[in-house]
Formats: sequence, C-alpha cells, structure tokens
Amino acid sequence: MNIQQVIKENHLELLFQQGSFGIEKESQRVHADGAVVVTEHPKCFGNRSYHPYIQTDFAESQLELITPPNKKIEDTLRWLSAIHEVVLRSLPEDEYVFPLSMPAGLPPEDQIKVAQLDNPVDVAYREHLVKSYGKSKQMVSGIHYNFQLEPAFIQQLFARQNDYQSAVDFQNDLYLKIARNFLRYQWILVYLLAATPTVDANYFRHGTPLKAGQYVRSLRSGQYGYVNDPSVKVSYDSLNDYVTTLEHAVSSGQLIAEKEFYSNVRLRGAKQARELLQNGIQYLEFRLFDLNPFEAYGIALNDAKFVHYFILLMAWLDEESLASAVELGKEKLAQVAWENPLSATAFQAEGERVLQQLLTMLAEIHADAEMGEIVKEKLAQFADPSQTLGARLVNAIEAHGGYQKLGAELAIRYKKQAFERFYALSAFDNMELSTQALMFDAIQKGLKMEILDERDQFLSLQFGDHLEYVKNGNMTSHDSYISPLIMENKVVTKKVLAKAGFNVPQSVEFTSVEQAVDNYALFAGRAVVIKPKSTNYGLGISIFQQGVHDREDFAKAIEIAFREDKEVMVEDYLTGTEYRFFVLGDETLAVLLRVPANVIGDGVHTVAELVAQKNDHPLRGDGSRTPLKKIALGDIEQLQLKEQGLTVDSVPTKDQLVQLRANSNISTGGDSIDMTDQMHPSYKALAVGITKAMGAAVCGVDLIIPDLTKPAEPHLQSWGVIEANFNPMMMMHIFPYAGQSRRVTQNVLNMLFPELKS
Amino acid sequence: MNIQQVIKENHLELLFQQGSFGIEKESQRVHADGAVVVTEHPKCFGNRSYHPYIQTDFAESQLELITPPNKKIEDTLRWLSAIHEVVLRSLPEDEYVFPLSMPAGLPPEDQIKVAQLDNPVDVAYREHLVKSYGKSKQMVSGIHYNFQLEPAFIQQLFARQNDYQSAVDFQNDLYLKIARNFLRYQWILVYLLAATPTVDANYFRHGTPLKAGQYVRSLRSGQYGYVNDPSVKVSYDSLNDYVTTLEHAVSSGQLIAEKEFYSNVRLRGAKQARELLQNGIQYLEFRLFDLNPFEAYGIALNDAKFVHYFILLMAWLDEESLASAVELGKEKLAQVAWENPLSATAFQAEGERVLQQLLTMLAEIHADAEMGEIVKEKLAQFADPSQTLGARLVNAIEAHGGYQKLGAELAIRYKKQAFERFYALSAFDNMELSTQALMFDAIQKGLKMEILDERDQFLSLQFGDHLEYVKNGNMTSHDSYISPLIMENKVVTKKVLAKAGFNVPQSVEFTSVEQAVDNYALFAGRAVVIKPKSTNYGLGISIFQQGVHDREDFAKAIEIAFREDKEVMVEDYLTGTEYRFFVLGDETLAVLLRVPANVIGDGVHTVAELVAQKNDHPLRGDGSRTPLKKIALGDIEQLQLKEQGLTVDSVPTKDQLVQLRANSNISTGGDSIDMTDQMHPSYKALAVGITKAMGAAVCGVDLIIPDLTKPAEPHLQSWGVIEANFNPMMMMHIFPYAGQSRRVTQNVLNMLFPELKS
Repeated sequence: MNIQQVIKENHLELLFQQGSFGIEKESQRVHADGAVVVTEHPKCFGNRSYHPYIQTDFAESQLELITPPNKKIEDTLRWLSAIHEVVLRSLPEDEYVFPLSMPAGLPPEDQIKVAQLDNPVDVAYREHLVKSYGKSKQMVSGIHYNFQLEPAFIQQLFARQNDYQSAVDFQNDLYLKIARNFLRYQWILVYLLAATPTVDANYFRHGTPLKAGQYVRSLRSGQYGYVNDPSVKVSYDSLNDYVTTLEHAVSSGQLIAEKEFYSNVRLRGAKQARELLQNGIQYLEFRLFDLNPFEAYGIALNDAKFVHYFILLMAWLDEESLASAVELGKEKLAQVAWENPLSATAFQAEGERVLQQLLTMLAEIHADAEMGEIVKEKLAQFADPSQTLGARLVNAIEAHGGYQKLGAELAIRYKKQAFERFYALSAFDNMELSTQALMFDAIQKGLKMEILDERDQFLSLQFGDHLEYVKNGNMTSHDSYISPLIMENKVVTKKVLAKAGFNVPQSVEFTSVEQAVDNYALFAGRAVVIKPKSTNYGLGISIFQQGVHDREDFAKAIEIAFREDKEVMVEDYLTGTEYRFFVLGDETLAVLLRVPANVIGDGVHTVAELVAQKNDHPLRGDGSRTPLKKIALGDIEQLQLKEQGLTVDSVPTKDQLVQLRANSNISTGGDSIDMTDQMHPSYKALAVGITKAMGAAVCGVDLIIPDLTKPAEPHLQSWGVIEANFNPMMMMHIFPYAGQSRRVTQNVLNMLFPELKS
Repeated sequence: MNIQQVIKENHLELLFQQGSFGIEKESQRVHADGAVVVTEHPKCFGNRSYHPYIQTDFAESQLELITPPNKKIEDTLRWLSAIHEVVLRSLPEDEYVFPLSMPAGLPPEDQIKVAQLDNPVDVAYREHLVKSYGKSKQMVSGIHYNFQLEPAFIQQLFARQNDYQSAVDFQNDLYLKIARNFLRYQWILVYLLAATPTVDANYFRHGTPLKAGQYVRSLRSGQYGYVNDPSVKVSYDSLNDYVTTLEHAVSSGQLIAEKEFYSNVRLRGAKQARELLQNGIQYLEFRLFDLNPFEAYGIALNDAKFVHYFILLMAWLDEESLASAVELGKEKLAQVAWENPLSATAFQAEGERVLQQLLTMLAEIHADAEMGEIVKEKLAQFADPSQTLGARLVNAIEAHGGYQKLGAELAIRYKKQAFERFYALSAFDNMELSTQALMFDAIQKGLKMEILDERDQFLSLQFGDHLEYVKNGNMTSHDSYISPLIMENKVVTKKVLAKAGFNVPQSVEFTSVEQAVDNYALFAGRAVVIKPKSTNYGLGISIFQQGVHDREDFAKAIEIAFREDKEVMVEDYLTGTEYRFFVLGDETLAVLLRVPANVIGDGVHTVAELVAQKNDHPLRGDGSRTPLKKIALGDIEQLQLKEQGLTVDSVPTKDQLVQLRANSNISTGGDSIDMTDQMHPSYKALAVGITKAMGAAVCGVDLIIPDLTKPAEPHLQSWGVIEANFNPMMMMHIFPYAGQSRRVTQNVLNMLFPELKS
C-alpha cells in the first residue's frame, strides 16, 4: 500500500492529522538551591495507589505527572499546566520542581529513598533497579510522549488495501513501521531538542566521562543515560519478533521485567507484550525527550506539535531496508548524543533532507501554515546549531555559573509564576473560577476528571466505578431537579418557603405599570423593594428603605423594574444586613457579608487615588477572571459620591467611609467578608432548613438579619429570607476580600465521593 | 368607627375589595331523564375520607363539589369548572349532573341511600336528618359561597380605631355586622337569584302547598326548603350570644349538632362555635343560593361578583337598630320567597334603594366600571321582574313542559359540552395540555393541588403531610438536577450515554462554517445529519440519508444549521424508524411512532380537500391547545408535494400516501401512533437504562430502530439513541392519533404518591 497515495486519493488528510496525545513528565522535588529533597511525597496528593495525575517515578522525591489522553495536543499541554499548578501550589513552601532532566545536588545514595508505594512488588522492582543501575541514573527525568493515530484513519486505510485480512495485523504493522522509522531518525529530535549537556560528577558510578568544560547534546540518550545494557536486543521487525525477543530478554535474566526495556519507542496497549498479539498495538510511547528548562512545564507547545508531525512523517515515509535501518538509527543517536551542542552535527545533510520531506508532507496533507513555520525553524537549526535547545542551554548554564544554579533559579521563578493568579487554573481560565477551583481540588486528590463541555462548565468525575457529573462546580446529582426550578421563580420560591414555615417578606406581583400604580395604596408608607420577577443581576431594583411616601416615586420605580421583565414584584423591605449563607447538605459551610463598593479616606489621597489603590488588590480584576471586581468610577459611582458631597477629586478625611455604590454586589466592586465564625448558629440552622425545603443539596441562601449575634426568633423583625440561589458563587467564599477562606469546592467533592478519604 | 371614612382617608379602597372566595356546590347525579340515580358514588373519585374537591352531601347520589379558596372569584369559578369537567368525564356514560336545586323524579324514600361515608358518626348524623326532615328535603341542592375579607384590610382598619383593644374582638364584630346586615337584606338576593319556583308533588311529606300552576321565587329559602324549625333561635348580636344560643339549641335537643343549624350565614373558622371566641371568625359562609340552571356549573361569574360586592356593602352600610333588623330580614325573606317570580316584589323600593347605595359604594371605592354595569342590570330587574333568574326559569320550565324535562335536557347538554375538548381542562387552558391532564388526574383522585405559577406550569400537590412540587407535568423531585443539565446539552448527552455503553451515533462539532467545510472529507459518502447543537424544534436540521456526496450540498446544510446556533454538529445518520419511548422509573410506559404530515388518497378528493378532512379530527387544532396540529399547506408542504409531482389541487389515487412534510414532528401536522404493545421488550429495557444513565425519573428517549420486532443487538445497525428529553410531551401518549391511549400523568402521580391507592 502506498500510504501517501491512499491518503490523498481518499481525502484522508485531516483524519491522518488527528489522534490522541498524552504526556508523562518526571521531575525532582528540590530545595531552593536545586538540590534534591529527601522528604516524603506530599500527603495532600491523596493515594498513589490510584492517583491518575500525580505519581512518583523511581524515587520518593521524583514526581511523575501524567496527563489524560486528549484529541488535541494543546489540551494535553493545558492539562500539563493545570497539574503543575496544582503541584506547585500544594508543595511545602520550601520545595520546588527542578526544571532540568539531570538531577543536581544529589544526596548520598543511602539517603535517596525509592518511591514508597503501597504495592511491595513495585518497591522490590525499584530496589532491583538500584542494584542494576545505581540510584543516580534512576534520578534522571524526562518526558514520555504518547501518541495514538485516529482509529477511524486506520480503519479507512485498512478498508482501502488488499494485503491484509486482519485489521489488527494491519494496525500492528502500521505502528511498527512508525516505530522503526522513528528509531531510524530519532537522532534528529535529539539534535534539535536534547537538553542534558552536563551533570554533576557524583552522578556517575565510576567517575565522570566528561572532560573538563565538555558539553554533549544528550547525556540522557547516550550510554550514560537511562538506557539498557547494549546486549539487550529486541527486534521491531514484526510484532511477533518483538514479543519473542523481549520475552527472551526477560527469561534470560537480561531484564527483570518487560517494563525494564528502556527503548525510545514502546509498543503500548497491553500490560504484557504477548497480549498485543491479541488486541493489537493501541498507541506508541516515545521516551527520548529531555525536559526543556526554558518551559515552565518541561515542553514547548511548538515542539510538541513538531513531534506529532515528525511521528506522522514516520508513517508517511517509505522505509529503508528493514534489518539495518533500526540499528543504523541507534548508532547515529549515540553519535549525535555525544556531539558538542554548539557545533553542527555529522548528519546535517540527512537531517535537512528529512525535514524537507516533512515540509513536503505538510503541503500534501494541507496542514496548517503554522506547522510549516515550526518545521522551517527547526530546519534552520541544522545550519545554525546555536539555536538548538542544547546550545541555548549550554549558554544559559555558562551564564549562570552551573546547571544547578540555573535550575534553581528557574525552579523558583516557575513556582512564583504558578502563584500569580493563585485562585485560577490558568490553562482552563476560559471556565468559571468556581469550576477551576473544583478542578484544582479534583486533580489534587486524584479524581479522574473529564471535561465534557468547557463552555458549559460540564465535568465528569470518577473514582473507581463511581461516576458523577458536575456543572458549574456545584450542580450535581445530589440536587433534586425541582429545586432549581423552584429557585429560579421568585414567586414560587416564596410560596414554597412560606408553606414550610420560614419568614418570607410578603409581595405582590404586577403585570403592568398601571396595575401596580393603581395599587399604590397597598404600599403607601411601607418599606418596600420593587424588583423585576426574574432577573438575577440586581438590575431594575429600587428600595424604599424609609417607606414609600410618594405616588410618583413609586411609579418611577415600577417603570424601571418593568424595563427588565414583564412581571414586577413589590415586596416588604426588611431592615437589617444581608448575609449569604453557603449551605451544603446538613451544614452551613460559609457565611459572607457583601459590602457595597467603598474606600476609606486617609486624609491624603483623592477618591480616585484611593480607588486605584484598592483596585491593586490581587483578587480584583474584571470580576469574571478574578474573584473580585475592580471598582469603577462611572456615572453611578459619581452620583453616589455626589450624594455624599464628594467628587472623584475630593480628599476624604482619615477613616471616612466613602460609598461608591448602594448595592452590595461583588460584580460592582463590593467587598466580600467572611463572617462564618461570627454568625449565630441559629441562622446557620435556618439556612440549612431552607435548603432542605427547596430540595437542594447545595444552595446559597440570602438572609436579612438585624443582629447576627442574637438568636433567631420566628418573626420578620428577627430575620427574613429574601432569596435562594441554586448556583451560588463558590469563589466568593474561597477567596474573600477579608476573613477566612472556606474551600467549599472540597466539600462538594467530599459530598460526591464520601469514599475518597481526604 | 366610620368604616367608609377610614377606607377613603387611608386609601384602603383596593384592599377592601380583596379577599378569598370558596364555593361548595351540591347537585344530584341523575339519569338521562333527570331522575335521581340510586347508584354508588363512583369509585374513580378515590376516597371521601380525604377528597378535598369531590364529596357527597346528604345522599349517596348527591355530589358536593368544593373549590379551594382563591384570592380572585374568577379563579374560584375556574376551579368549579375544572372539578365539574373531571366529574362529568368520570361519571358512568348514563349518568348526568342535574342543574336544578330541586330534585326531580325522586325514587321512593327507601331507595334513597344516605352517603356511605367511612366514619359511622357521619352516617348516623344523616340518619338523624332523615328522621327530622325526611329524605326528600335533604335532596335539595344549592351553592354555599364562602368569603373572607383580606386580613391585611382588617388589620389596617383595626390600627385606625380606638374602640377595640383586641384585634380578634374587632374582627369578630366586623364579620358579625356583615352577617346581620346580610340577614337583613338577603331577600334582595333571593329576589334576583332564586331559582326554585316549583318541585314535584312527591317532594312534600304532607302534600304540596303549591296551587296548580303556582310558581314561587324560592321553595328552597321558604318554609318548605332546607331550613330549621322556626323555633330554633340563634342570636347574631354578639359572638358570645351566637355561641351561647347555638349551644343551647343543641343541648336542648332542638338540633342534633351545631352543623344542623341551617342559617343563611354561618360563622366559620372553627369546628365548634365556642372555638371562635378564642380564634376569631375567619370567614363567612352564605348558603342561600339556588343552582342557576342556565349556567353549566350552577353560578354565573357576574352573579358571583355581584354577591361579593353585595357582601362588601353589608360591611360598608351602617346598621339599623340591632334587635329587630335580623328578624325583619328573615320575615321579608319568607315573604319574597313565596312571591310569584313573574311579578314585582313588595319591597321593590327598598331593593332599589340598597342597590343605589351599592352603586354609590362602587364609585367611592373606585371599583371596576364592569361592576357598575353588573349592579345596574340587577337594579333594572326590580322594575322588570321578567329578567330575574326566577322568572326566566319559569318561562323555560313552561316552554319545556316541566322542570324535570328542562333539567334533563340541560344536564345532557352540559355533559356533552364537558366532552367537547375532552383532552383539556378548559378553565386552565392557558396552561400546557400535559399539565392540564395531570391536574385532571389530581382533582379526580383527590390530591390537594395548588397552582404556584400558572405561566410556569408550577403545581404543588399534597396528600396528608406529603408535599410534592411538579413543573410541566413531569419535572419533580424524583429527577436529579444534573439530568436535565445533561440532556439539554447534546454533546454531553452523547458522551454520558457512550460512557454508559449505549449505541450513540458519532458526531463532530464545529464552530464555524469554514471549519466544518474544511473537514468535508471526514464525512464524504457517509449518511449524516447536520444540526444545530442546542435547538429543540427541528429547525436548521438537514439529513443526508443516502450519504453526502457533494461538498456544496454539505456547505449549504452547514450554513442553514449555523443560522440557529453558534455550534453545529455533524452526526452519523441512522437508518431505521424513530420511536419515542416514554420512560418513568423502571418502566417504558409508552412507545410512539411519529409519522410526517400526510394524507391518503381516495381517488376522488384533492389534496387540499383531504387535508381539510383530516384537519377536522377532534384532536387537531393549533397544536398547543390541542394534542395534534392541523396540517398546513404552506411553502414547505407545497414543495414537498412538488417533489411527488403533486399540487394541492391534485387528486391522489386511492390509497396513495401523500407526504406533506419530511419531518415527523407533531408540531408540523404529524400523526402520533401508539406502538407500545408492538415494540420488542428489549428496546423498552434499553430506554429504561438510558433514562437511568441520565439520572432521570421521567424521560422521553428517541431511538432509531430498523425492525421493532427483532431483539436489540449491541451495535448501531440494530438501534441507536439520538436524543433524551427531560420534558417529554405526555399529551402525545395520552391522546395519540391512532392506537391505545396511555394515561402517563396518572403514573406520574403514582410515582409521587405511592401511598395513594388508585
């Protein structure tokens, strides 16, 4: 089969470029000076017996971060970023993640602890590795790149050939072709992307082979790296040969287990190689990538894309004669690995030829123009070795006075970066902050998570066989469907709450301005709030706190409310302070006071300056990508100032409270203040009761309370419930402006997965 | 206190006009000839020990229909209508509801069975009544009108007076004033609204007191009616007097129980009169109203409104000197009751004066202009007695040759009317048909129902302490909230169903036309359906049943879909027929086949004529107020005809199937055909599994099945799930175009109230 021809004739170009991508990335936890720590794997990462994302590799200090497979390489890197942010923010304050593959400041061998896994077989395997290779070699870190061709693509190819009867055989041979070609040309990736030019002398068991000042392209891919003894020979000629030779290496004692076979291409899809004969190769694991220290998470997106198309090229190109090609590739790899990264490679012509073939392929399969640019940049690095990653790293090491110093400085920088927007999961910043917080917690504790719909904030979470779905961070199977339906209708909400015996302000609904104004007498003299029936953003609401005394004022407020909805409510206004109760199940987890946008005078600065100062707070921003919103100085705020006899240029006296808004919404610059511990427990119990009356598992209940220290009494003067919200903003409680943080997302996970010990 | 002045000075006019209204209406079940039946109270009305709406009064044959209290008299009459429709449609085919107060064709006394209630005390009480009054008198039917002033109005009045310290005393005296004034002027209502001018001779125990051809205004309100012995004297001077005198009448043996006191005004709010002293009178019951036979449900809306303002007038007017007024009123009542309905009343001047005072009151309290018209019409009836209800009834009786014949004819007519739109609950026709069906079932079985929000189709249902909320007829606490969230997102739905192992067609989403068209190769040659991600009405959907073979066609379909949404899906098209499975809990209750709008030729009529014939079907109408929709003959239908080489004027051959639509939606004139019994059970089990995977209690599942007789196999060629709907139209299953009706609303009630035996 001529694969190029089949692809082109059958419009399979796009299908060919699809697939699944997964990344595993090892790295050492280190001290601020870059030296490897000897502490235990942090307890907050749950249990390694099941954690899908945060594991340890060889050593207890060696993190292994694993992304789930994704259809887009970009998503895989987003996961890698998210897992890193979770790890970096969860590590002890004095620990960092080392960005280089070669470990620095290795402790004496007796202090290096192998990973303390639950399964004694796993520990025994590691002890065997210590004997065979020594601990130091096992401390090297790298990236494994997993790639699966789109199954539909393989099916389409299979349907258009006559050589194979079995789809599994066809698939195996296709993957084997890629594996062989990859082994033949892997040296190109090492030339371009290797980043292990040096290491401390104590890394080597028998003294360093490097001359003073000598740098190589890849210690890791060379004979001193994480490689098997050269006597281990495994054939890629056919799957049968692969299985037979690999099993022989184990049975003859060359390897203790199949997984000790450190080939740069592993055939994946089964625990034991022999099972591949039955099920077929499912995907390939490419293991030769050094950590890129200039990237916070070890690999650049463009390089990941380049690798993808390089792998596709391995399928696209015809093979050289079988037997010698793989061996030739290995020899070239060894030679290139030991070259000086600042000089050209001995195989420059072949490298340039292959990348030219890659460019040709890109054109033929109509790849994005961006890919062409990426490949051309790599191609130019053959003529200009100084632009290779290895060369740039050598220069950086020289500039910083050693690779440990460079690594330490970068490790500190990357950890700091991970805290810049500590309330967000940067890679998923298009999602809601509350959902990001829940995702953070799920990744930390090791719940298997899938994003079913990013725009819709729809996640699935899984622990063992237990599957749960979550929308908007708190809508789950624990809520009854009728409860949000009740809550999104204020009239029904009040009827339901009144039926259940809670204090609810009375209200009357109107469907026209005239009808409402005709009923003015019903409200004359009473403290009322006039609001649209079903908006949620505080729009169109007027409050007559001291009672409505003028028919015209009343009519005006009614008109304003009708701009937002076809129905308007006139409701008893309760005197007191509004608090938001966040209820989950049988407990009020958090109570929040929302204070209207304000600044406090200092007798020196103008209102505008005070606002600017307050807006510098790290939690303030646009209010959707940040927990709090910057205070605006628009018409509404200026009107509010005017009522206090102020302008933006006034200088308020020291401690003068300057109101910039009448409403307390966080979305208009309000402050959020945690009051959970101050609130009398009787109100917390009421909020739980209200939540239960609604049939909700998670609910935000707004109560008006004149005195939060006095116990609740059964009348409207003591307290009243004004709203229940089925999609409460969890973020306000997690990152309040003042007071204690309440990590309510963790409670949501505990509710969904009570079996998951935290 | 001058009540008129307080109302005007404090703008209480509207509050004065508010209140609560409830109606109890008795009537006899009769044969087609108007004679009273001797059958048992129908079993389908559940159990009389708790039924809030459908009870029996004295006799087993005597229905007592009870509305709940409502803030608007209009709503009370809507309830009265709804309860009647339930009753009339539930009665045996040969039973009717007699529209006249006086019974006709009474069986011999020994065949009249008193109501067979569970409580032996209730039965014993009825047996006592038989002894005291004879059975015939107990067979008279009427309407009791319950009215409560708006409590806030009474509070406002109380706050503005100084005579009373106790709010309860104030309230009692206000209600007593109304009661006394009512008793004083009740004769006016008898003059205007009485409708018992005659009765069969066998009604009387001791021979008829009516001369041949004599008609009176009200047999029921006169001495031969449902009244106590004149020796029973109960005082309305004060609540204390009322309680004392009433208790004396019982203890002295004049009455067997307080409830035997048949005053035209009863003080309500407690089981025993003495309790009123503690809790206060809550409302008044006015009992003098005869059934209006010209109204299907016994009372005209305008008359009900008139009574409301007449009662208000009783509060508004000053009283005459206490002691004599009530007795004077009773005397006038007796005299007016015995007048000839065709002649003027002896008290015309007083009647006109009182109604003039009523008009004055209407003006002073700014009542709706409509009320003035109603009162003026009544006022005119003093000068023109022929327009009184009694006179009109006498004329009708004469015209029909007797009141039994008139009653029988009207009874048959009203029953027929109740079946005209047998699928609807006419009074609540602004609500969805499925909700109307559920309300019908709830009323029939005796669940206490409250309409929390009519536009939102929001009900509460209660049985004892067990309270449930229902929206749209099937959204309940039994559904998990996450399930509708899953179902309203097609992408998430498919991911969830695929995770659970169900056959789901593959699909790809696109966010731009260009992106989709660039991926044309993915779909070339495949049968696909192209649709917007989240519309529900079949808009923007294109189907390439034979595979998409042209890039331009594909692009066009993509563009059409993008008109409806920002995201578009291209999905595998499954060959086979689409069936809708209605699942509730562990069972598929109904399976429906929807057939695109069509007519079958007869070789004679044109397409247009055939469509007109088909549209005559009673289930067809606008599709929202009817279960099925009339077939249109618009552009789309004409295009569809053109593709078959037809126009609206073509005459199709006999048995020729003429397609008028490609899509099978009921909302575009499609036919609904019940296939529940034909469907292989394996698919029903699948639909249940799909519903469970969604976490739903009630779900509409759309499956594509090539052969409904063959058992399901685990691949897309055997079946595939294309949609799950959390708000399935129940109406389609209840009233299919063809096949068996499935009363799924009853199953919803059984699910919510398993304790309610059906």
